[in-house]
Amino acid sequence: MRFPSGLSAFPITPADDTGRIDTAALRRLVGRLVAADVDSIGLLGSTGIYMYLTRDERRRAIDAALAESSGRVPVIAGIGALRTDEAVALARDAKDIGAAAGLLSAASYTPLTDDEVFEHFSAVAYGSGLPIVIYDNPGTTHFKFTSELVGRLAGVPGIVAIKNPGVGADETAKHLAGQRGTVPKGFSIGCSADWTAAETMIAGADTWYSVLGGLLPGVCLKIVRAAQQGDAAEAHRLDGMLEPLWELFRQYSSLRVVYALADLLGICRTEPPRPILPLAAPAKRQVADTLARLPVDILA
Amino acid sequence: MRFPSGLSAFPITPADDTGRIDTAALRRLVGRLVAADVDSIGLLGSTGIYMYLTRDERRRAIDAALAESSGRVPVIAGIGALRTDEAVALARDAKDIGAAAGLLSAASYTPLTDDEVFEHFSAVAYGSGLPIVIYDNPGTTHFKFTSELVGRLAGVPGIVAIKNPGVGADETAKHLAGQRGTVPKGFSIGCSADWTAAETMIAGADTWYSVLGGLLPGVCLKIVRAAQQGDAAEAHRLDGMLEPLWELFRQYSSLRVVYALADLLGICRTEPPRPILPLAAPAKRQVADTLARLPVDILA
Repeated sequence: MRFPSGLSAFPITPADDTGRIDTAALRRLVGRLVAADVDSIGLLGSTGIYMYLTRDERRRAIDAALAESSGRVPVIAGIGALRTDEAVALARDAKDIGAAAGLLSAASYTPLTDDEVFEHFSAVAYGSGLPIVIYDNPGTTHFKFTSELVGRLAGVPGIVAIKNPGVGADETAKHLAGQRGTVPKGFSIGCSADWTAAETMIAGADTWYSVLGGLLPGVCLKIVRAAQQGDAAEAHRLDGMLEPLWELFRQYSSLRVVYALADLLGICRTEPPRPILPLAAPAKRQVADTLARLPVDILA
Repeated sequence: MRFPSGLSAFPITPADDTGRIDTAALRRLVGRLVAADVDSIGLLGSTGIYMYLTRDERRRAIDAALAESSGRVPVIAGIGALRTDEAVALARDAKDIGAAAGLLSAASYTPLTDDEVFEHFSAVAYGSGLPIVIYDNPGTTHFKFTSELVGRLAGVPGIVAIKNPGVGADETAKHLAGQRGTVPKGFSIGCSADWTAAETMIAGADTWYSVLGGLLPGVCLKIVRAAQQGDAAEAHRLDGMLEPLWELFRQYSSLRVVYALADLLGICRTEPPRPILPLAAPAKRQVADTLARLPVDILA
């Protein structure tokens, strides 16, 4: 079995306006995911505002999540940073505390070359001993991984998986087959961009790294299980019911929408770190209206 | 007189591989700029690796630069950060230490909306009292300032100037005239991307924010003075002599090339922060060959 696989659920990270994490609120979010029996928890992803948190706060987040999950669900922790030495330190922290893997992006300010990203990832893998998930997120990092670079990285000991950005429904099976051809057999290939994930899981991806899964793990798990059992019709049916939410994710970004959803569902009231603003009132009403029209069992 | 104006020279920030600044080396770099009588020093710009330095190290850099310049040349300090509260703190530090202005980018991880950038800049201007230069650098931040947003920001008390990205030679006069129409009369409009700067200064920009000026202030000052005196032919002649360097800047990025130049000229031997790698040997030889063919008086 490749790791990660199945549903990797990405919760938000509740924090105050100075970037101090509310660990009690985070434990409640993690507790819901453990209770739902997700396959892994993706802590400190982009939705988990990892780039806006200090090393100390990231340690506190991993501590709290591991205390809550107490071995029942593996925790994958975001370890991305602009500096290589900082990413190595974050990866060592995550390993010391007990994270199962680290999610490493090509976060950058000065645009990076392929060789620079290769060295960065290798240094973190070798320097920490933590299994590394390549976090390919051009929407935030603006770095584009070529298939050649993914192939090189997948050959580095300790780099075990990739979280791909969204690939259009028509292209996803072809992209997946192409990527399988460039990585070792045990390497896990996963997808993100929730609105493209059902199709990619049906096409045989190992893992859905899911923003909505961090808040509504039930329905996301059902989609994953249907895809894993080859029941494309059921996966499509459930995914179709979520389309109004996907439309909001595309329009306002999944991060901003999921903060509003957490509040509207009474799960967690918190705001993203400034300069990121909460959704303005009209957009939030639109989220509330969408929520009110969703079938009740989706929210269970 | 608008501020900044003329040549704002941007030195590199020598630091070790843990991000600790070599303040003695930085003072030598700043001392050369003061001796050349540049109009301002642009400390901790992108070439000055501001995004890769802690708040403490940025404070040390400003301290060292001000100690060296001792009031003879105003220092503009990079105060960009992903978090608004951090940018406010950096701006207050810069003001407390004695910087003349702060250079504020729309540094981002989660892509920002116009309203978010407006609130971010306003919070830093109001929260610090430091005069703010808008740092528009889509090549690193991937945020695109619209002319409408620049106009709104230029109306915020304390936001005094903009450092524009490179505009092609054919477009620069038109762009400049358009921007003048959206900002108050006292607002300073400047340019960067060294290979486009002579043309933009000839077209009447106030300031050249210059990477090469941080290392070779003499020739850059001559271009600025020629442009200011309406001697387009002389500005073009000098700029043309630098074209082989501009070609390297475009090919390898000005940051990587200027680190190699500093070493080859015997001015400062340091490396950029990982993951950014120094130029590989063949590229560095190309820089050395280019340098060897430049007229000697350019290097004075």
